[in-house]
Amino acid sequence: MAIQPTGAVDSGSAVLVSDTYGKTRVRVVKVTRSNGRHDLQEIGVNILFEGNFESCYRTGDNSRILPTDTMKNTVYALARDHATDPIEEFGQTLIQHFLTGNPQIEQIHVEIEQRPWDRIDTDGRPHPTAFRQAGAETRTAILTGTRESVQVSSGFNNLFVMKTAHSAFEGYIKDPLTTLRETSDRLFGTAVKAEWKYASDSAAPLNTGWNTAWNGIRRTILSTFADHHSLSVQHTLFATGEEVLARFPEVSEIHMKMPNKHCILVDLTPFGRDNPNEIFVPIEEPSGYIEATLRRA
Amino acid sequence: MAIQPTGAVDSGSAVLVSDTYGKTRVRVVKVTRSNGRHDLQEIGVNILFEGNFESCYRTGDNSRILPTDTMKNTVYALARDHATDPIEEFGQTLIQHFLTGNPQIEQIHVEIEQRPWDRIDTDGRPHPTAFRQAGAETRTAILTGTRESVQVSSGFNNLFVMKTAHSAFEGYIKDPLTTLRETSDRLFGTAVKAEWKYASDSAAPLNTGWNTAWNGIRRTILSTFADHHSLSVQHTLFATGEEVLARFPEVSEIHMKMPNKHCILVDLTPFGRDNPNEIFVPIEEPSGYIEATLRRA
Amino acid sequence: MAIQPTGAVDSGSAVLVSDTYGKTRVRVVKVTRSNGRHDLQEIGVNILFEGNFESCYRTGDNSRILPTDTMKNTVYALARDHATDPIEEFGQTLIQHFLTGNPQIEQIHVEIEQRPWDRIDTDGRPHPTAFRQAGAETRTAILTGTRESVQVSSGFNNLFVMKTAHSAFEGYIKDPLTTLRETSDRLFGTAVKAEWKYASDSAAPLNTGWNTAWNGIRRTILSTFADHHSLSVQHTLFATGEEVLARFPEVSEIHMKMPNKHCILVDLTPFGRDNPNEIFVPIEEPSGYIEATLRRA
Amino acid sequence: MAIQPTGAVDSGSAVLVSDTYGKTRVRVVKVTRSNGRHDLQEIGVNILFEGNFESCYRTGDNSRILPTDTMKNTVYALARDHATDPIEEFGQTLIQHFLTGNPQIEQIHVEIEQRPWDRIDTDGRPHPTAFRQAGAETRTAILTGTRESVQVSSGFNNLFVMKTAHSAFEGYIKDPLTTLRETSDRLFGTAVKAEWKYASDSAAPLNTGWNTAWNGIRRTILSTFADHHSLSVQHTLFATGEEVLARFPEVSEIHMKMPNKHCILVDLTPFGRDNPNEIFVPIEEPSGYIEATLRRA
Repeated sequence: MAIQPTGAVDSGSAVLVSDTYGKTRVRVVKVTRSNGRHDLQEIGVNILFEGNFESCYRTGDNSRILPTDTMKNTVYALARDHATDPIEEFGQTLIQHFLTGNPQIEQIHVEIEQRPWDRIDTDGRPHPTAFRQAGAETRTAILTGTRESVQVSSGFNNLFVMKTAHSAFEGYIKDPLTTLRETSDRLFGTAVKAEWKYASDSAAPLNTGWNTAWNGIRRTILSTFADHHSLSVQHTLFATGEEVLARFPEVSEIHMKMPNKHCILVDLTPFGRDNPNEIFVPIEEPSGYIEATLRRA
Repeated sequence: MAIQPTGAVDSGSAVLVSDTYGKTRVRVVKVTRSNGRHDLQEIGVNILFEGNFESCYRTGDNSRILPTDTMKNTVYALARDHATDPIEEFGQTLIQHFLTGNPQIEQIHVEIEQRPWDRIDTDGRPHPTAFRQAGAETRTAILTGTRESVQVSSGFNNLFVMKTAHSAFEGYIKDPLTTLRETSDRLFGTAVKAEWKYASDSAAPLNTGWNTAWNGIRRTILSTFADHHSLSVQHTLFATGEEVLARFPEVSEIHMKMPNKHCILVDLTPFGRDNPNEIFVPIEEPSGYIEATLRRA
Repeated sequence: MAIQPTGAVDSGSAVLVSDTYGKTRVRVVKVTRSNGRHDLQEIGVNILFEGNFESCYRTGDNSRILPTDTMKNTVYALARDHATDPIEEFGQTLIQHFLTGNPQIEQIHVEIEQRPWDRIDTDGRPHPTAFRQAGAETRTAILTGTRESVQVSSGFNNLFVMKTAHSAFEGYIKDPLTTLRETSDRLFGTAVKAEWKYASDSAAPLNTGWNTAWNGIRRTILSTFADHHSLSVQHTLFATGEEVLARFPEVSEIHMKMPNKHCILVDLTPFGRDNPNEIFVPIEEPSGYIEATLRRA
Repeated sequence: MAIQPTGAVDSGSAVLVSDTYGKTRVRVVKVTRSNGRHDLQEIGVNILFEGNFESCYRTGDNSRILPTDTMKNTVYALARDHATDPIEEFGQTLIQHFLTGNPQIEQIHVEIEQRPWDRIDTDGRPHPTAFRQAGAETRTAILTGTRESVQVSSGFNNLFVMKTAHSAFEGYIKDPLTTLRETSDRLFGTAVKAEWKYASDSAAPLNTGWNTAWNGIRRTILSTFADHHSLSVQHTLFATGEEVLARFPEVSEIHMKMPNKHCILVDLTPFGRDNPNEIFVPIEEPSGYIEATLRRA
């Protein structure tokens, strides 16, 4: 098969500028067993292909289309053949599989989200075959692969955290529509989403392993968030990213999102009561939003 | 005000058989501070009134209606005046407040749901003022109060658990529409919802405290689920409830829901692979559902 | 098989007070074809059994258990054999099927929720084979059947409506925690849930048909809501229910829920602007809640 | 204030590569009144700023930060001063406001999502002051503005549609992991998301108006979807986009997402029944996914 370049091609009234297709939310639970002790892993996989698929769009010629149903089957089959832990390696396994024998594919995007399961403690000991889902937080891996290279990002999503001290917001712009009061003592709640890239020439993640690196970086973000004397969400976001870059030379770049999960101090004066930063109402919307990318200098 | 009975009253073409009104999802975050160490509690409160409100329905006479907006304010004000932990006691505080001075109210239903926040560990120590939301599981209290008595139930919701061993399902009815295969080794996942009542003449929860009782009962349900040799969801539900009644004499009744979070074994034979109970697909729907109430004999 | 009564049986430390099991969210899309014109129907079915299942709970004896997987298969097979429209009749078909040959079942609860699909208009005409999902509103049927009788309720859920005129809330109780201001002109938004029962001796729904009755009752609720001069949510709920009972003699009872989807008037005075009931903020929580049942006098 | 360029600046160990902040989900309901007839509009607004905010990240200097709370207030105030319909014009109003007097802002991204409300019909006529929410579909406007220009996209989201005829999927790649069967007659359901840009030199949307253009383009997408003889999702996505470009010279580019809402044909042969494309199970996950951008040739 002679593969055409996929740049925008003029043919008729419309140009196909860009396109992608794939399967999302392919979920797998994998149980591995060893001497009566089980390990349980739950992942959800998204797979997107880019390449030379224009004939499918224009004429309905499906001869270059690997069905998304087959992508799903492939996740199941490769989960049987290979380790799914760490998810960064399983993502690479998927990319290598699809790039072999599918010349029409130029680039593959894989996202894997892992839901955590902890062991149930019984009589003070972790149970060998019973598990409790640890929460809303997920571990993520995002990979973009071509025949030349694969770029891997690790991260997490939905890490809900709250600081009840050492958080201020003062000295901002006032205009005629300002009603917010400056405060040197507010609640700072957020649901952190972080993704970081490893330097391509760094052997560190391979030396320490993906899981060790992930745990260390997450712990750094948590402890920096906890200890930071925050003057704004931006200030704390930067401090946590900077600390990750400082402590983990294998990380080349980190991207973070910190939506502001506002907790509004309730005005109790109409009820004849003071409120010394004690009673707050959490609100879901509207929501402040901060997002930034930091790179090693 | 002379209060009329609230039974069904014939007046015109329609009888008001039953009615209730109130405020739902009143959320509060409370921070308590002691020598640089903070405690963080997040609750959501539902309040429903029953009583003599028929004139409001028939004629729009609101003279017996305490607005739901005032119910919301009351939660904020009482959260300032009183402890909100344990939630069972704050629920009683709310009921007593509303029953005082509102003769038209005959019965009040209060539900409180507490979202758990754990301390962030930094340098191996729990941080005094930074918190992490522990997960989807919530602690619940359900109270129904009249001027004569208050019935309190404690419980939890959304406790996601999974057994990867000691779970079978065999010997069931087969009919012409049966396709399910019997298995002596399946995954058993569920999201447990439990509510239990304390015996009215029992001083136990007051002796040990609501929090100690709650933690012990939750731990008992978790460990029984983990250790049980399950022949069905029903079998395990009963075993956990029975164990709670056996160990906690202060519990008079326990109600549990166990929706079956199915994990389907993937048939890998079309792909030339076996699947020795290793690769499963979790599905959200359809979902098995089991619910039962157990009482002390 | 000799069936035991299912009342609470003392056996050991725990009594099984009540129990139910079944399958929820069994979804079916059915396409019926007639001379190039298709009909599309989407339903979700919940099925719950009550009866003599105690041996399963106590000993894991599954010999009286029809698996929930078979319930699911039965929905698929009976959807092939029978009309699924109207859903009230398909629910009766399901109940009759399960009560035949399963003496251990005493009562069956079936809930069916239908998601509406409208035809797409092309060139001003409804398309014979292309459909658009009409919205969040669903039609519901709730049936409870025994070997003696089947009770059918029809209804709908998630009917989002809003009145921008003729809605007041005044004359309510004021106490020291009141901050709400009386208003003779507010927005009144709600998501109506309604369920009504048909008189058992009434032939009306059979005469006019389930669909005609359902459409008429829904239209009555909508137009009464629109035209009512509302003095409170309770007042309007009662008026709509009363109107249904007045116009539809075949309806014996109607139950309605009207959560108050609050729209808060924004105070624009800090910004030097008035706000003559023009700019509102819709809030999801907290939410007022009104629920009542009306019966024919 | 002397504004620094916002390119990546090396300062210490971390470079701030990119950043944005703002407010999301600012909701407004606006009621306009004219001779007893009301109009009701509901929108949600997201606002994101890019510019010179580095000092806030590095040192917590908030002197260039317009608080997100003020962004929220600005939406309320400008909704009072200006028309919010069409949303494309209200978005431009917001951008112009913020770019005036905030030299630190270089680019503003505004997204507005409009939830549709239809009038309730009573006695066959649209009611002047009572409304019904039309469904899950929303109308969207996405604007990116600088001091030089504003780029406007219009679109919609969550348009759930289904074809029950004229949809095939055949001739695709088979590999050892393929199990999908080719079919010349399948259900094709999707939730269309579309966004289109208007040519910057086109006066057409101004001539016909934003609302007329939007309605025409949405109708074209619906009717093309309905009438297309689909050989794949890609094939139909392209045909609908091509038709929009052909009929609307003012549109320069269109982007569409069509997640495949699979309906799986149920195998009824184990139950002794055939299934001539009649009974399907809709599944939420995994989900096929197709996304493409078309531009005028």
